[in-house]
Amino acid sequence: MRFVRMGRAVLAAGWLCLGGTAVAEPFRVDDRAMATAALLRATALDSRLSFQIVESVTTEVGPRLAGSPGDVRAVAWAEAKLKSLGFDTVWTEPVPIPAWERGEGTAEILTPFPQPLTITALGNSVATPPMGIEAEVVAFPTLEALAAAPADSLKGRIAYVGQRMWRTQDGSAYGAVVPMRSGAAAEAAKRGAVATLIRSVGTDTHRFPHTGMMRYEAGLPQIPVAALSNPDADLLERQLRHGKPVTVRLRLSPTTGPERQSRTVIAEIRGRERPEEIVLLGAHLDSWDLGTGAIDDGAGIGIVTAAATLIRDLPQRPRRTIRVVLFAAEEIGLVGGRAYAMAHRAELPNHVLATEADFGGGRVWRLETRLPEARRPEAKPFATALLPLGIALDGNEAHGGPDLGPMRAVGVPVLTLAQDGSDYFDVHHTADDTLDKIDPAALAQATAAYAIIAWLAAEGEGDLRSGAE
Amino acid sequence: MRFVRMGRAVLAAGWLCLGGTAVAEPFRVDDRAMATAALLRATALDSRLSFQIVESVTTEVGPRLAGSPGDVRAVAWAEAKLKSLGFDTVWTEPVPIPAWERGEGTAEILTPFPQPLTITALGNSVATPPMGIEAEVVAFPTLEALAAAPADSLKGRIAYVGQRMWRTQDGSAYGAVVPMRSGAAAEAAKRGAVATLIRSVGTDTHRFPHTGMMRYEAGLPQIPVAALSNPDADLLERQLRHGKPVTVRLRLSPTTGPERQSRTVIAEIRGRERPEEIVLLGAHLDSWDLGTGAIDDGAGIGIVTAAATLIRDLPQRPRRTIRVVLFAAEEIGLVGGRAYAMAHRAELPNHVLATEADFGGGRVWRLETRLPEARRPEAKPFATALLPLGIALDGNEAHGGPDLGPMRAVGVPVLTLAQDGSDYFDVHHTADDTLDKIDPAALAQATAAYAIIAWLAAEGEGDLRSGAE
Repeated sequence: MRFVRMGRAVLAAGWLCLGGTAVAEPFRVDDRAMATAALLRATALDSRLSFQIVESVTTEVGPRLAGSPGDVRAVAWAEAKLKSLGFDTVWTEPVPIPAWERGEGTAEILTPFPQPLTITALGNSVATPPMGIEAEVVAFPTLEALAAAPADSLKGRIAYVGQRMWRTQDGSAYGAVVPMRSGAAAEAAKRGAVATLIRSVGTDTHRFPHTGMMRYEAGLPQIPVAALSNPDADLLERQLRHGKPVTVRLRLSPTTGPERQSRTVIAEIRGRERPEEIVLLGAHLDSWDLGTGAIDDGAGIGIVTAAATLIRDLPQRPRRTIRVVLFAAEEIGLVGGRAYAMAHRAELPNHVLATEADFGGGRVWRLETRLPEARRPEAKPFATALLPLGIALDGNEAHGGPDLGPMRAVGVPVLTLAQDGSDYFDVHHTADDTLDKIDPAALAQATAAYAIIAWLAAEGEGDLRSGAE
Repeated sequence: MRFVRMGRAVLAAGWLCLGGTAVAEPFRVDDRAMATAALLRATALDSRLSFQIVESVTTEVGPRLAGSPGDVRAVAWAEAKLKSLGFDTVWTEPVPIPAWERGEGTAEILTPFPQPLTITALGNSVATPPMGIEAEVVAFPTLEALAAAPADSLKGRIAYVGQRMWRTQDGSAYGAVVPMRSGAAAEAAKRGAVATLIRSVGTDTHRFPHTGMMRYEAGLPQIPVAALSNPDADLLERQLRHGKPVTVRLRLSPTTGPERQSRTVIAEIRGRERPEEIVLLGAHLDSWDLGTGAIDDGAGIGIVTAAATLIRDLPQRPRRTIRVVLFAAEEIGLVGGRAYAMAHRAELPNHVLATEADFGGGRVWRLETRLPEARRPEAKPFATALLPLGIALDGNEAHGGPDLGPMRAVGVPVLTLAQDGSDYFDVHHTADDTLDKIDPAALAQATAAYAIIAWLAAEGEGDLRSGAE
């Protein structure tokens, strides 16, 4: 997941807000639907379907960077998988994307103590010259410290930013540290640097660099930027503490080619009474290229696909339609989420709830709502049905998921089922994102939570829409 | 550490056994020496010297494969470090070694589901042709299963052996599984295979392949052999379970050049009464090339160097000489240990005790002796002084350490201070062998244990020698 929160104002601009200002019919759930939720909960906890789906995508597809051959295979895999699971309708929608490829990356300390460094390019980075860049390293503890350096103070140097991420259950440290990844190259370029290195945005102490997107600023030179694994960042910092000039050679060969096309894959369980009303369960189909996309976002694919399948297996379809959306090209800039919102803008007023699973395979521990204060009691049926799973109703600022920003901005109701992300950033965006990192029991718990939310939203009376926020 | 136990008979052949058959004067320690042992224990637990030494070698040298430029730097580092610590004498001794270099290694599954594999060549492996080898994989769960396959049954195939290592505190699983690493290529070649892949000999679930030495058998074709990381071995096995032919492309480019020279680095604290009698504390200076040699064997270097330094810092030198030996070229075949025993064969009868630290940075939990049954009570002073560190006297089959085999074979007394190796094989022989894997407090405890052993052996009356075993 990218976890970048987009300003509502930006995305709503030029769009019509949904609905009117009239207060909708309050959301409520009858006893029969609650009993079905309890059944779904028990069935989901016993099911290994979500894990089997992650196993399938990591084994049969693996790395699936948007625009790569793996991405093409992922789309075909998803279509075939959703059809084989018996969804009522399965289709794909085109998503035009920029075509960035990683190429090769090497780095080594030349002085004072020669040693190789384990690095990887950040997404969107330009290449170095083929023979690489050799320059002295100037270190900063944080992005803010770099941004406080005088103009031209980095002329001909490599800027290194060593901000450390810390472990949190809610993933809040990511939002705090990720501006270093996005913005260090621009800040360094402003001051004359020829390249940038950052400490990986990750909580592990293994020799895996963490990739992720970065951005250049218009009007500034574009300089190459790579992440060091945490142990390599430690090594660089220890050498710097010797007080002698530390010079590094960096070679990166990423390329950006002509626009390509990826595809978002969509499947529906058609509602029995109000099929035009949609409960959207999202995840993203693409992954970074280094790992096999197990926690990011094979887990999400498994959770939402299995949750919808379990509802399909009930004796009766829910009132409303449940739509599983496996977004294209999330990692490289939330492209699929924007494309979906644009393509379905006429239909967004009929989206009664949307939520996305993109935070790994951990247990859900918290349900966050996003409701006007007066309507918060309407979340009670969700809370009641989730309580036996150990999930607390807490917080009213749900963002719903990275690909849902544009929908949320125009009033689509969202909920967040917050998963335990304590170890998510150990492997996030690394080569180590593999199936063995997923605990099937935790994944089943998360699947149960998503199934319950989707079922209740699709079956309840009234709905959570309230017009534009 | 390589952990290969060498047959005594082989190495003793052609050598004179030490001493005669007369029973030596029993080993005993007076109260004053025991009091000094207690002081050493407290001082060592408070000291960070052993950690600082590991920090120094991993920061200032890093990878130091025998025969590489890093190895040359390691010898210079060790000489300078031992001199700066105030040892009485520091010198080096030449060790001729074979020159194997890893080169590059890549592998990918071509069918049924294309995916890259994370691999590394095993030490001593030959190269593939430059364009690589493409062949179908035939899998075996164990080396024994491979060895039971019919002649010619692997013609034109790649053999894969997937034996798993398990976690043990005493490292015993390594001895059980490592024959797969040493012998799989020869067994596969006997049956016509064109290459071999093995599951890494390691207990982690990270995407690091574990290297280590392998051996070819005379008269058989030499085929390339590489280790898959554990998650990649899982992936290959999952694809194999689909029942379709799994084909892999493997490219390895290791080279073996003309013989080179490495050097063992030796330093002494000279004994005050019997300087010709030697207590040997060993570790090995070389490392594999993938990591920085922190747990293997920077930790051992730190432990024995700091232990000797702490004894040097006492008001009075011990009766006997303490000799720190940082062996060259352990990883690539225990070359430095053999060279030392040969070069010092006339002096070995004066080695009153030898022990080597080569099992990482964990706490010592057990003292193993190697004494005739009647002399076992002589180990009591060691046990008494170690007890406050939580170390039990247990076992009488000490091997002393990988480089000590040739000495032990001719009667040099050895002890083993068994460290907790529960997580040693998580990073052993991988790129992930970095400083952060060392717990300074555990390392200090181990240093205290080695300091006590060395002090008591160097200061006690009588000694543990008993002539040839």
